[in-house]
Amino acid sequence: MSSEKGMLIVLSGPSGVGKGTVRKAMLKDATNKFKYSVSMTTRPMRPGEQDGVDYFFRTKAQFEEQIRQGGMLEYAQYVDHYYGTPLKYVQDNLNNGWDVFLEIEVNGALQVRKKMPDGVFIFLTPPDLASLRHRITGRGSEDQSTIEKRMEQARQEIKMMSNYDYAVVNDQVPQAVKRIEKIVQSEHLRVSRVIDSYRKMIGDK
Amino acid sequence: MSSEKGMLIVLSGPSGVGKGTVRKAMLKDATNKFKYSVSMTTRPMRPGEQDGVDYFFRTKAQFEEQIRQGGMLEYAQYVDHYYGTPLKYVQDNLNNGWDVFLEIEVNGALQVRKKMPDGVFIFLTPPDLASLRHRITGRGSEDQSTIEKRMEQARQEIKMMSNYDYAVVNDQVPQAVKRIEKIVQSEHLRVSRVIDSYRKMIGDK
Repeated sequence: MSSEKGMLIVLSGPSGVGKGTVRKAMLKDATNKFKYSVSMTTRPMRPGEQDGVDYFFRTKAQFEEQIRQGGMLEYAQYVDHYYGTPLKYVQDNLNNGWDVFLEIEVNGALQVRKKMPDGVFIFLTPPDLASLRHRITGRGSEDQSTIEKRMEQARQEIKMMSNYDYAVVNDQVPQAVKRIEKIVQSEHLRVSRVIDSYRKMIGDK
Repeated sequence: MSSEKGMLIVLSGPSGVGKGTVRKAMLKDATNKFKYSVSMTTRPMRPGEQDGVDYFFRTKAQFEEQIRQGGMLEYAQYVDHYYGTPLKYVQDNLNNGWDVFLEIEVNGALQVRKKMPDGVFIFLTPPDLASLRHRITGRGSEDQSTIEKRMEQARQEIKMMSNYDYAVVNDQVPQAVKRIEKIVQSEHLRVSRVIDSYRKMIGDK
């Protein structure tokens, strides 16, 4: 069934839950055959980050031009910076039969859900809110009002879980990765994704 | 989340595809935590079979009494014999938080789908129709018209796949078992199955 369209896999979840860490662990696992869609952002590059690997780092003007041209699958602003997913890479790879993996913020995931409802939408959750608070304050780089704002945002985002197909607890990164991999393998067995092949097999198509 | 309702897992598929073999392999795997619902039948016991293990073997009168009392989750007649699933065992175990596993014919699976749409419905498929023909004739115990009848029935049943959630190819029994186990684990992460727990976690319920 290699001639079939690829599957879109969207990993999202509240700020601070560890989406990036889980994504990086997934990319290191050589058994995963998907293409990772690198996001685009206008935020400054941090030490250790690479353009085209962690993000495509662009100016605000460049990003807004991309939006105007309809070139973004999704985008949003967080703390005065744009973050988004270039459309072309995703579309080209899906059409060529590759699974495409996105790790994006919840607002972006909602936009993608509307445009590509066949995707597999996975919500990464903290083991509990106390742990989420610990992770956010543990960074040590934020003031109290920022923390409170993020906590309220997290509560809102957990409510958004109902827009997703799966909820994966990020208690241990290797466990979360395994759960996501099982979801991906299992989704490839969905009747809605394979029935056309079977119709051909019995000569109905 | 042990206080939650269990999940119903329904394995079905065309005659001769090897449902029983896959089911037995699943029951041998000690990591599976589900309760297996033994079917009831009026067909005669075969050598090596045990009442209450392979089937509950009952008379036609007993089976029809059970139907009249509304005690069957599903039932059907094949080659003049009744086959069906007693309702009480399934209901009691689901209510007590156990996953319940059924291995039943396609007509029965459709009846269960209507009554318990939240179940996970898995369709076991032959690698291809040629292989199915081989398996059916390979039994060596059927005449040509029986074989033709079964082939036509198989074509019809493969068309019924659209009523299922997943299609699992039975190319190798251990592989089929692994696929089913992944589906079960993955389905336990479905937002629709766990969101109430999360609502409680953030105090919304």
